[in-house]
Amino acid sequence: MAQNSEQSLLILQRLLADGDAEALRERHRPRLPEEQPLPPRFRHSAAKTPEAIEARRTILREQGIAIDQLCGSDDRMDPETLEGNIENYVGLAQVPVGIVGPLRVNGAFASGDFYVPMATTEGALVASYQRGAQVVNQAGGCTASCLTESVIRSPCFVFDRAATAGAFLAQVLQQIDELKQAVESTSRHCRLLNLRPSLLGKELYLILEFFPGDASGQNMVTLATEAVCRTILERNSVTPTRWYIEGNLSGDKKATMLAFLSARGKKTIAECVLPEPLVRRYLHTTPEAMFRYWQISVLGGIQSGSIGVHGHYANALAAIFIACGQDVACVAEASVGATRMDLTDDGELYVSVTLPNVICGTVGGGTHLPTARECLQMLGCVGEGTAPKLAEIIAATVLSGEVSIIGSMSAGDFAQAHASYGRKKKS
Amino acid sequence: MAQNSEQSLLILQRLLADGDAEALRERHRPRLPEEQPLPPRFRHSAAKTPEAIEARRTILREQGIAIDQLCGSDDRMDPETLEGNIENYVGLAQVPVGIVGPLRVNGAFASGDFYVPMATTEGALVASYQRGAQVVNQAGGCTASCLTESVIRSPCFVFDRAATAGAFLAQVLQQIDELKQAVESTSRHCRLLNLRPSLLGKELYLILEFFPGDASGQNMVTLATEAVCRTILERNSVTPTRWYIEGNLSGDKKATMLAFLSARGKKTIAECVLPEPLVRRYLHTTPEAMFRYWQISVLGGIQSGSIGVHGHYANALAAIFIACGQDVACVAEASVGATRMDLTDDGELYVSVTLPNVICGTVGGGTHLPTARECLQMLGCVGEGTAPKLAEIIAATVLSGEVSIIGSMSAGDFAQAHASYGRKKKS
Amino acid sequence: MAQNSEQSLLILQRLLADGDAEALRERHRPRLPEEQPLPPRFRHSAAKTPEAIEARRTILREQGIAIDQLCGSDDRMDPETLEGNIENYVGLAQVPVGIVGPLRVNGAFASGDFYVPMATTEGALVASYQRGAQVVNQAGGCTASCLTESVIRSPCFVFDRAATAGAFLAQVLQQIDELKQAVESTSRHCRLLNLRPSLLGKELYLILEFFPGDASGQNMVTLATEAVCRTILERNSVTPTRWYIEGNLSGDKKATMLAFLSARGKKTIAECVLPEPLVRRYLHTTPEAMFRYWQISVLGGIQSGSIGVHGHYANALAAIFIACGQDVACVAEASVGATRMDLTDDGELYVSVTLPNVICGTVGGGTHLPTARECLQMLGCVGEGTAPKLAEIIAATVLSGEVSIIGSMSAGDFAQAHASYGRKKKS
Amino acid sequence: MAQNSEQSLLILQRLLADGDAEALRERHRPRLPEEQPLPPRFRHSAAKTPEAIEARRTILREQGIAIDQLCGSDDRMDPETLEGNIENYVGLAQVPVGIVGPLRVNGAFASGDFYVPMATTEGALVASYQRGAQVVNQAGGCTASCLTESVIRSPCFVFDRAATAGAFLAQVLQQIDELKQAVESTSRHCRLLNLRPSLLGKELYLILEFFPGDASGQNMVTLATEAVCRTILERNSVTPTRWYIEGNLSGDKKATMLAFLSARGKKTIAECVLPEPLVRRYLHTTPEAMFRYWQISVLGGIQSGSIGVHGHYANALAAIFIACGQDVACVAEASVGATRMDLTDDGELYVSVTLPNVICGTVGGGTHLPTARECLQMLGCVGEGTAPKLAEIIAATVLSGEVSIIGSMSAGDFAQAHASYGRKKKS
Repeated sequence: MAQNSEQSLLILQRLLADGDAEALRERHRPRLPEEQPLPPRFRHSAAKTPEAIEARRTILREQGIAIDQLCGSDDRMDPETLEGNIENYVGLAQVPVGIVGPLRVNGAFASGDFYVPMATTEGALVASYQRGAQVVNQAGGCTASCLTESVIRSPCFVFDRAATAGAFLAQVLQQIDELKQAVESTSRHCRLLNLRPSLLGKELYLILEFFPGDASGQNMVTLATEAVCRTILERNSVTPTRWYIEGNLSGDKKATMLAFLSARGKKTIAECVLPEPLVRRYLHTTPEAMFRYWQISVLGGIQSGSIGVHGHYANALAAIFIACGQDVACVAEASVGATRMDLTDDGELYVSVTLPNVICGTVGGGTHLPTARECLQMLGCVGEGTAPKLAEIIAATVLSGEVSIIGSMSAGDFAQAHASYGRKKKS
Repeated sequence: MAQNSEQSLLILQRLLADGDAEALRERHRPRLPEEQPLPPRFRHSAAKTPEAIEARRTILREQGIAIDQLCGSDDRMDPETLEGNIENYVGLAQVPVGIVGPLRVNGAFASGDFYVPMATTEGALVASYQRGAQVVNQAGGCTASCLTESVIRSPCFVFDRAATAGAFLAQVLQQIDELKQAVESTSRHCRLLNLRPSLLGKELYLILEFFPGDASGQNMVTLATEAVCRTILERNSVTPTRWYIEGNLSGDKKATMLAFLSARGKKTIAECVLPEPLVRRYLHTTPEAMFRYWQISVLGGIQSGSIGVHGHYANALAAIFIACGQDVACVAEASVGATRMDLTDDGELYVSVTLPNVICGTVGGGTHLPTARECLQMLGCVGEGTAPKLAEIIAATVLSGEVSIIGSMSAGDFAQAHASYGRKKKS
Repeated sequence: MAQNSEQSLLILQRLLADGDAEALRERHRPRLPEEQPLPPRFRHSAAKTPEAIEARRTILREQGIAIDQLCGSDDRMDPETLEGNIENYVGLAQVPVGIVGPLRVNGAFASGDFYVPMATTEGALVASYQRGAQVVNQAGGCTASCLTESVIRSPCFVFDRAATAGAFLAQVLQQIDELKQAVESTSRHCRLLNLRPSLLGKELYLILEFFPGDASGQNMVTLATEAVCRTILERNSVTPTRWYIEGNLSGDKKATMLAFLSARGKKTIAECVLPEPLVRRYLHTTPEAMFRYWQISVLGGIQSGSIGVHGHYANALAAIFIACGQDVACVAEASVGATRMDLTDDGELYVSVTLPNVICGTVGGGTHLPTARECLQMLGCVGEGTAPKLAEIIAATVLSGEVSIIGSMSAGDFAQAHASYGRKKKS
Repeated sequence: MAQNSEQSLLILQRLLADGDAEALRERHRPRLPEEQPLPPRFRHSAAKTPEAIEARRTILREQGIAIDQLCGSDDRMDPETLEGNIENYVGLAQVPVGIVGPLRVNGAFASGDFYVPMATTEGALVASYQRGAQVVNQAGGCTASCLTESVIRSPCFVFDRAATAGAFLAQVLQQIDELKQAVESTSRHCRLLNLRPSLLGKELYLILEFFPGDASGQNMVTLATEAVCRTILERNSVTPTRWYIEGNLSGDKKATMLAFLSARGKKTIAECVLPEPLVRRYLHTTPEAMFRYWQISVLGGIQSGSIGVHGHYANALAAIFIACGQDVACVAEASVGATRMDLTDDGELYVSVTLPNVICGTVGGGTHLPTARECLQMLGCVGEGTAPKLAEIIAATVLSGEVSIIGSMSAGDFAQAHASYGRKKKS
């Protein structure tokens, strides 16, 4: 998850842009429900009666949130709006959406009490995140910080020998400014942040890091990469035998150590501190027991050969990605990271989640589709500069899920929860 | 992807169950379109006019496939049918579905020409898979073999010392038959296939492999694991200090080397051989050029620290999982595997995909929801014993996607394809 | 580090072979210095005067240990004894040997107070292990258990199609007994323990696990694998296009997740419990501080993408391997594993090291060379059945090193230790 | 293996320092034996008679190489010279040394025909490398390029919250120049090249990359890191709760993806092109067969979960490290990398090895010990600026080993080679 120092400095300066460190600290400060009351939460979570659904709708309406598209009360979507989204189109798959909320987030970009839409068919999932959100809320909410925004592409240039590749590279490294300009000509938003070469014998891979604006950015960076490559090929006196716009080193659509180490997408951290009484009351266990289980889960993850170590990030990611019109295949790469638990000197439970690869956007892709738009609006993630806000809400939700599942494992009620929520009643 | 020898034998015997090796070879035999014509494919893939959609619907109807739910012509779903699927339910997210098809599969379980529903908002994705399917079809289709069906859970038992853990384990290893019975008492379908201990100091993890029937099976194996643990704890004279139903060694919802090595879910292989003229005609490149790029992608994948090495399995997995009511979070674990290309002595392109961890099911989870049900019916994957068929269709689709993207990278038209399909027209 | 259940049972039965579980527990019991005094340790560890060396020699002699070869007082080795060890021989490299000891081990195979020879040129290394050994001794020594003894080879068979590979495999799986016999015909000691197939498209890899007796066994299993392959090829009615005696899946001479998961070589665990007063006195820190640092080191290891997670196993492995005539290149594969620290309810520090891949032997390779022989004799590791004993002593030494370095990191005196030991004096 | 662009440029400029790109290309040009005859090679490689050894000694003497220390004809070493190398010293372990050579290297730093000392007890090893060297020589030798020289340390700073860590980091990033000065005050040679932060929740790891001069540098960078940390702690207004000089993220003494990706030690590439007649004559196989096996070995390596993919780098590394007084434990981290084979348009075999983590030095550590010194002198690696030369010779030897083993696997004579060289004669 390492950045080089220049980039890191830019990142931190951005975090502090509209104020000083003190202002950021203030945004990150817990807001206890006693001081600042929470908006209402839903009751009877399992109920699917019209009354129950209407009650939820009312609560959301009072918060200024419309769910007409989700409820199907609006007209069906005009397929023509799907231009650029799909081919051989025949209709719409439907995935049920449940709400986790309110979830109090004291983020650098996301500040507020959010109702988070999760599209899933896995029983107990929403209930589990809701339980986590509840204990997080009672502790004053969680912090969240989106540290980076970038997407990687890695074109590859093939030569006859390593030395020729090196001669080519020597020229590329002196063309960085031109490459940056070439990228900016392809899009108003896209910028080339960094170029790192990786030479393996006679094949030269370039790891290009782009800033994608509020888009998740895969298409954008493909076009930008083409511009980079064309510029290089025009300018360079050394010519490769062959070249490819992507050499499969970018970590696109798959879990990789590269992305874990260097951040692909939005690197985001969320954290909270849970006092013992809250852990006892809401999770029926203790900070110490959860900390113990966390160690077991880390050692288990290490033995399994996972990338990073955590509980079930993919559950939140997939559910929010479907609801919010994201590229769901990116769950593969986004679901790596590290959950950290610790005991504070006061016996509280410290919890953080670090997600180096949250690929998400608030423009482009499926974000304009009716139900997706509604879900993004529910989160206040429509309009310029909202992509890091979305990443922070995602991380906060992921945190709630880690708190809940680790609480459940520690308390020993995991199987029971699935038995009661995740099954049809026998009748 | 290794099995032990007893399990492997069982697997192969099952593959051959309704016939001998000769019969399997016959099922795997390519069926050229000249011999056995293909059902019609869609035209004007980008069009979303009512006429275009109706034309697609007509083609499907003639193949006996209804898409009323996808088209929204049926009544809205009764939320009460969502019992066991979701909590805090408010409505339905909609994801556009495009069809890749026909795709000719000559599988051990899946034999036929399939229209594969893919739910996605990523432009060019369906078109790319369609292109791959087309060249695969012209070559007589692809083979597919679902080799294993299993799901892993890994409870953890904590002791004061490694020696105590060892004494506990010695007893467990003599209780295997009782544990198998305990599992069978929890479900008609679930069976304990294998128990492997992993001792790390004083902590004993058990890797339990279950057969989940046609369900994807995560809930089923949670309950089965609880039965295993309870039985062990009752019978065993050595008592652990603590125990957990899941020690995070099972690879649930994340990419792991463990699962890549030992198969979590349905290990499935699909393969085809593409003659040069077809590669030239449909992919505008040559077998040799694709084989060259494959090497570059393998070396790129290795440098990225991915688990296995491939192009973009997650795209097919996510799109089919959403359409077919699967647990989409499992894209995280399912999207590992290995794509193999080779040149035959005749200069044809051999392509295979090996997916050790396809987690899918045809009962349970979201499979009964209206649009999901319709999509599963489209694939003929409703009814007992259809889960491995679904896995094979998924692998065949994944194969088409690898053929297409690697073709595109080799031909140098990847960026162009995204520019033409994946964008709104400027007007 | 998982075994299948049949193998695991065999392993545990062997551990209990000469007694019941109670006897093993007795062997594992700490022996406090107050009850059972330790043999003398060396003083003035940095001194290299003739007197200092002679003093050490005297201590060893009193323990029945000769070091004439190490001291160079014997005749030079006759090069003819190097037959089968080296080609283009010109002479002998010399590596200084320091002694860590006594180190009290209460192992399943290794029981006693050992003087461990370490060949190294890295200043502070021996002193650091010595410090760890000292605190381990004061706590009554460490336990050690060699759980498995196996070496892997992985021949690969190539076919035209996956289905042909499957038909070939179906026959192999019914030939296991013949393959076992074929292996036994190649060596008195070698046995085939397990055969696991791994099918990747049209290529079939077999993971063969052999028991190598007291040898480290790489040559032995190469010949055994050839016998396995020849037998398969003679018996099988399906013929591969090509085959290779090793498909690079065995983890030979490199760190792999496969070996970490399934044990390559001798899987060995060592552990001890250190009371707080000892930690304070010998390591100048506390169990809690060491436990805290352990967490940091685990999270650091995860971020680095290591296989397993630990401090510096390679230091002990390389030093003992050189001293004892082992195959030093195997440090690459042996130096993976997991260090576990925990706090007991009484505030003591629990420490274990789990090494799944200790490749070592007491016959064959370089074990008969004069200085190696002397070092093996120093450890009582000459004669039949001593290989697991050697593995346990190695693990115990590794444990001492982890205790020392983590103590040093926690106390903040790591840099200082290197400054005082690892440098020439400025004069 | 990626560098950032500024560093990469510096690296390339250094490679070109004493000339232009043309001069480097000239240094890399193959020198065929017909044009420039090779110095003599040894005969009767297995013989250990006094005559055979004397014949080898004569050949070396004629090349200006003395091996008195290796032959034991000089006086025994004075133990006092071991100050700073070892504690509890008792004597010297002896490891037989065989010579691989001549090996023609056309490197950026290493240019010449080298006799490479390998200390090992594994029969057939030297013979195998010799075979590889011979075919490389006949093809005009191999190129070699040491691209980077760096060593990593990763101190860790612990805070109460991520935001505090971020505030601390913001200050660190503005102190880079002071940190560079602090480093330079600790050593004449050491320089801080790069600082990359990695924030995981509340814990901040800094990845510090140092230039170590000609030393392998581990001790040097420990002291430099302490200087960096002390400077940060003095200057920074935010204070960590705790800090550690090494957070186990540096990849020290273990194989890691971090180091594979970012180069730890000397990243070095060696390559050669072997015409078919040479492959047939010396390796009894064809370029095509070797290229085929290479694919199998890559797919096997991927399945094994190795870091990078290659045959047996550790064999050369361990043998040269022991002979040349290197830190042998670093074999663990140095033995990762990637071997690349390809067929040229003319049907020749292209082979490269890329080793991102060669940790080696020509001053400090064990390099001054008598036999090590002699071995370094044999390679012309004594004196300032010779460390990259040593890295290139190591990479060239590794290349020879990959050529030989892959040739052997392809020709099917691997087992036979071990049977004839690696065993005692039965008498």
